[in-house]
Amino acid sequence: MSRIVMKFGGTSVADLDRIRNVARFVRREVEAGSSIVVVVSAMAGETNKLVALCRQAGPADPKLGMHDVEYDAVVSSGEQVTSGLLALVLQNQGLRARSWQGWQIPLETDMAHGKARIADIKGEALGEAIDGGEIAVIAGFQGIAPDGRIATLGRGGSDTTAVALAAALKAERCDIYTDVDGVYTTDPRIHKLARRMDRISFEEMLEMASVGAKVLQTRSVELAMAYKVPVRVLSSFDNPETPGPGTVICDEEEIVEKNIVSGITPSHDEAKISLLAVPDEPGRAARIFTLLADANINVDMIVQSPSRAPGKANISFTIPEADLDRAATLLSDAKDDIGYSAIQSDRNVVKVSVIGVGMKSHAGVASVMFKTLADRGINIQNISTSEIKISVLIDSQYTELAVRALHQAYGLDRAA
Amino acid sequence: MSRIVMKFGGTSVADLDRIRNVARFVRREVEAGSSIVVVVSAMAGETNKLVALCRQAGPADPKLGMHDVEYDAVVSSGEQVTSGLLALVLQNQGLRARSWQGWQIPLETDMAHGKARIADIKGEALGEAIDGGEIAVIAGFQGIAPDGRIATLGRGGSDTTAVALAAALKAERCDIYTDVDGVYTTDPRIHKLARRMDRISFEEMLEMASVGAKVLQTRSVELAMAYKVPVRVLSSFDNPETPGPGTVICDEEEIVEKNIVSGITPSHDEAKISLLAVPDEPGRAARIFTLLADANINVDMIVQSPSRAPGKANISFTIPEADLDRAATLLSDAKDDIGYSAIQSDRNVVKVSVIGVGMKSHAGVASVMFKTLADRGINIQNISTSEIKISVLIDSQYTELAVRALHQAYGLDRAA
Repeated sequence: MSRIVMKFGGTSVADLDRIRNVARFVRREVEAGSSIVVVVSAMAGETNKLVALCRQAGPADPKLGMHDVEYDAVVSSGEQVTSGLLALVLQNQGLRARSWQGWQIPLETDMAHGKARIADIKGEALGEAIDGGEIAVIAGFQGIAPDGRIATLGRGGSDTTAVALAAALKAERCDIYTDVDGVYTTDPRIHKLARRMDRISFEEMLEMASVGAKVLQTRSVELAMAYKVPVRVLSSFDNPETPGPGTVICDEEEIVEKNIVSGITPSHDEAKISLLAVPDEPGRAARIFTLLADANINVDMIVQSPSRAPGKANISFTIPEADLDRAATLLSDAKDDIGYSAIQSDRNVVKVSVIGVGMKSHAGVASVMFKTLADRGINIQNISTSEIKISVLIDSQYTELAVRALHQAYGLDRAA
Repeated sequence: MSRIVMKFGGTSVADLDRIRNVARFVRREVEAGSSIVVVVSAMAGETNKLVALCRQAGPADPKLGMHDVEYDAVVSSGEQVTSGLLALVLQNQGLRARSWQGWQIPLETDMAHGKARIADIKGEALGEAIDGGEIAVIAGFQGIAPDGRIATLGRGGSDTTAVALAAALKAERCDIYTDVDGVYTTDPRIHKLARRMDRISFEEMLEMASVGAKVLQTRSVELAMAYKVPVRVLSSFDNPETPGPGTVICDEEEIVEKNIVSGITPSHDEAKISLLAVPDEPGRAARIFTLLADANINVDMIVQSPSRAPGKANISFTIPEADLDRAATLLSDAKDDIGYSAIQSDRNVVKVSVIGVGMKSHAGVASVMFKTLADRGINIQNISTSEIKISVLIDSQYTELAVRALHQAYGLDRAA
């Protein structure tokens, strides 16, 4: 019997009517004869409410190192509630169902409370239960750490839970139900001519997820790629009897006609820091980036340029906007050690990325991008590239203009 | 080092200000040099909200027998949140603290999900943690059942958690912080001249709890009596620096001056059922009460009186008001088998009880009660007694009048 993992996010389980709607999607798969695992998020707004309570409880002394553990105890309760409610609704419709908390599976994590990684899933009992015809409703986003306490996987961790379970249970596929009906060539709210893709490769989805397409959490895509779990993104707002095809995320080999550019993705969660007049000598840059790495702050788009001061260089880079204050404090404290003259930071930036596996074998993608932006008078501040992605940092006021122009330039616009 | 268990109910942890206030009471005991276990309820209103969600999710098919298990998964989350938040607040004040869920202790229960009983507490790890100077914040009301799933102890189960932990940890005492400053001779909202008692015996408290004094859950008092755990009821709304003395619940032997009557307790959670013209022959009453017992409905105050029809009797009794609809349905379905002619039910009744260990050695308590009520023209419908309690069922419109009259008649009024 084929096993299927279905995952429903917060807006899909926002209230009991939505949860009953989820039950209809589940029933459809049960009647199709599959063994079913359902992974649920907290009801929309609940996690934010719980996080706010933790914040109000006060930032615990980080030296005591317990803050994240208690945060996990509090925040994980949101998914616990949804899992029990969906199990009740399914039972009420005459289906056999039970909820599973992360610690009951057990889904084992590392000790990084608040942003734990999955270490192992002991899926035997779970697999037996679903093959015996019982629907397993899993509280997403959480597991049990080696200290015997609940650990959460970080925001969006329910996607990761779903994909990891699909891998552990060797599921036929992992269906991620969300509030959009698939993955689009760009954000449809920004550009009306965006198109839903039928298929996208893991690599492309990974790049899109990592630069801000909020459809799937990055780690869940990494995991799907590593274990070759076919993932489908589809909408829980479709009619449960006739759901749309969604977007299948799969191996590059399974995509016959590869786009040179598949999507254009703007990411607003960026901030730029510039350190002026850093002594241009070996080890200075290392000090900066070691400092930030030790604080678990991801750095991207590093540009080093000569300073007007002789023997000095300006170093600029981007970091997640949420880390800006923390990074600025760390760098200020280390000013003498690094030896820069001034620090500048800028939140009004956006990273626009063009992504496509076809880039590997096609030249000229970058030049189209630069020319398109130059023609609109948009200045490129920083650039970073990967094998299948080119990203540029621009002033955030040009976001929509840049996205639309690039979408058209790469031939992605659908017929209006 | 002496161990102390402190328990805080829902109104004592209603929001973060109240939780910070709890932390002040805890700090006071820590500074007095004790090892501390704190048991918390869900924030006021949360449990009701979660129960309502479960109800909306629909009454599951009871034949599947899973309803209560999922109810437990949902409802137990309320205490989980409070335990994490209080631990955070304590940590934030520089104290070492951690939350413990029932399954982490583990506090083991039986399989009666939704109203489980505690089977065993493996308190070694918990005891070591608190003796090492860490405050243990326990999510009350819950444990882990033999099926490896969360089981709740029924409403008010946090009191039971606290007393059971005090027994398992051989604590010096168990302090129950609530929204009243002790146990009163009667409900102060009904009678202004009610007095706070300094001491009350377990037996008296048990009778008061079982007939509706909502200060402590009945089972927690039973447990305290069985394990001789001194319990103190006091208010979390007092100044944390100068808390009042509260009421100590202890062994009868520790109370030097015993009252004949200690308290007057009205209980509104009663309903009366009367079955008319039941054939007066062996086995008929057994059928009625077996039927109700099998449905887990507690019957009290049974009165059998001759019917006008020859060879028939009327049988009336009280049950918890919440069970009235269920009981009426059961009895109607069994009408032919029992053979009664008509069924009557009445919600407008109140059970008024006078309680006191001194009754054991003093006659005349009942006659004072009957005369006092008769003088006010209050008709007694049913009567039940125990060694230290006399209860009468009266029309609920006379509740306040009866309580005040009896309170005065037994000399309980404080100087006005």
